[in-house]
Amino acid sequence: MDLNTRPTVLLFDVNETLLDVGAVKRQVGDLLQEPGAGTLWFTTMLHYSLVLTVSGQYAGFPEIGAAALRMLARNADLGLSQQDALAVMAGMRTAAAHPEVIPALERLQRAGFRMASLTNSTQAGAEAQLAHAGLDRFFERQLSVQGTGKFKPHRDVYLWAADEMGVQPSECMLVAAHGWDVAGAAWAGMRTAFVAREGQQKFPLAPEPALDVPDLAALATRLTATQAPSPQARPGTAP
Amino acid sequence: MDLNTRPTVLLFDVNETLLDVGAVKRQVGDLLQEPGAGTLWFTTMLHYSLVLTVSGQYAGFPEIGAAALRMLARNADLGLSQQDALAVMAGMRTAAAHPEVIPALERLQRAGFRMASLTNSTQAGAEAQLAHAGLDRFFERQLSVQGTGKFKPHRDVYLWAADEMGVQPSECMLVAAHGWDVAGAAWAGMRTAFVAREGQQKFPLAPEPALDVPDLAALATRLTATQAPSPQARPGTAP
Repeated sequence: MDLNTRPTVLLFDVNETLLDVGAVKRQVGDLLQEPGAGTLWFTTMLHYSLVLTVSGQYAGFPEIGAAALRMLARNADLGLSQQDALAVMAGMRTAAAHPEVIPALERLQRAGFRMASLTNSTQAGAEAQLAHAGLDRFFERQLSVQGTGKFKPHRDVYLWAADEMGVQPSECMLVAAHGWDVAGAAWAGMRTAFVAREGQQKFPLAPEPALDVPDLAALATRLTATQAPSPQARPGTAP
Repeated sequence: MDLNTRPTVLLFDVNETLLDVGAVKRQVGDLLQEPGAGTLWFTTMLHYSLVLTVSGQYAGFPEIGAAALRMLARNADLGLSQQDALAVMAGMRTAAAHPEVIPALERLQRAGFRMASLTNSTQAGAEAQLAHAGLDRFFERQLSVQGTGKFKPHRDVYLWAADEMGVQPSECMLVAAHGWDVAGAAWAGMRTAFVAREGQQKFPLAPEPALDVPDLAALATRLTATQAPSPQARPGTAP
């Protein structure tokens, strides 16, 4: 995909892309006495967020995550109250940023990119997460799917986010460590960057992202090398 | 939920509800050298079926299952071609019926229920599956989500299925071993029966199903004990 003109707005997924939620996944694995359970739980939570969306329903991500955790606990013959399950979900709020994230966001901010977060977390949850991790100062807007009543990667979420930023979807780049997120954003008309965090893969049936990078440092390097979208920078025009 | 009047049409989910796909899940576990991988793969396939749906896209269930399998294989540093992944998916076509299914469907058929299958499998795939398992003779219609271009539990799938059967959603009962399927059907206005196969749980945030049974034998017993919806059978009228 063309990167000769740079995106006006960068939209960042939060969980796993900016924040390391590995501690919560490990906690789920310990609780269910099954090392792979954290990944199964996260995927189940994502599946059920869309089960609600395609049914015209909405519940907050913590309630869905807690419900998914209780289902897996029952499969393991463990009783788990909704309160205990929500306490596990609360661990998401204190996740730390991946180590390269702050310097990378500083470089992108200095290079003049408009930046916003766009997450499946609730508005309050996302604000708590980003403040705790020291990332809130980078974002012009902190957008949550809660504003749409649907979860990513529903097409409407991306169109809404672009509208909230006052730009066209094609002027945005969605940055995410999830195959499903970059797939949905591409299908909604955005450019995309896939951040290949450990255990994450692109979805083979989706369009290739414009950028496929190992981390946000590489993203910043690639993006700051692109031309700004000013008239002077357009190919074929004199400086 | 009221079971004094019986549903006119029973809609049966196929994979895991009627057919035992455990062999395919075990094959995936062996391939990825991780016993729990079969369950993670199946959940990932379901998640991505909805990723396509909420993006206005469609691909057949075998292609989505193969893509999900390749993503998990890459996470395990295993190369897997699309052809090899599709060969694993083909194992779904030769799944056997759970042992109690045929006698239970015979009882329901004798009791006069109209019955149809409703599956996320493709039309051709589902027909092959049901013929191989000896179940096709029970179903007035073999319905596939392919007819809608969306996957269960999208609301439109259930409304379409009811329409195809010439009845209102409220006259249908969706029978499934998946929490997400009975949740979606209930939100679309159908009565539901949850079949508690091993490793399956109801979704805690969804309405309670009308029936919660261990297998189809119990379903047949419960349903054949309910009144037929004929005028003569209505409570309070003389025979």
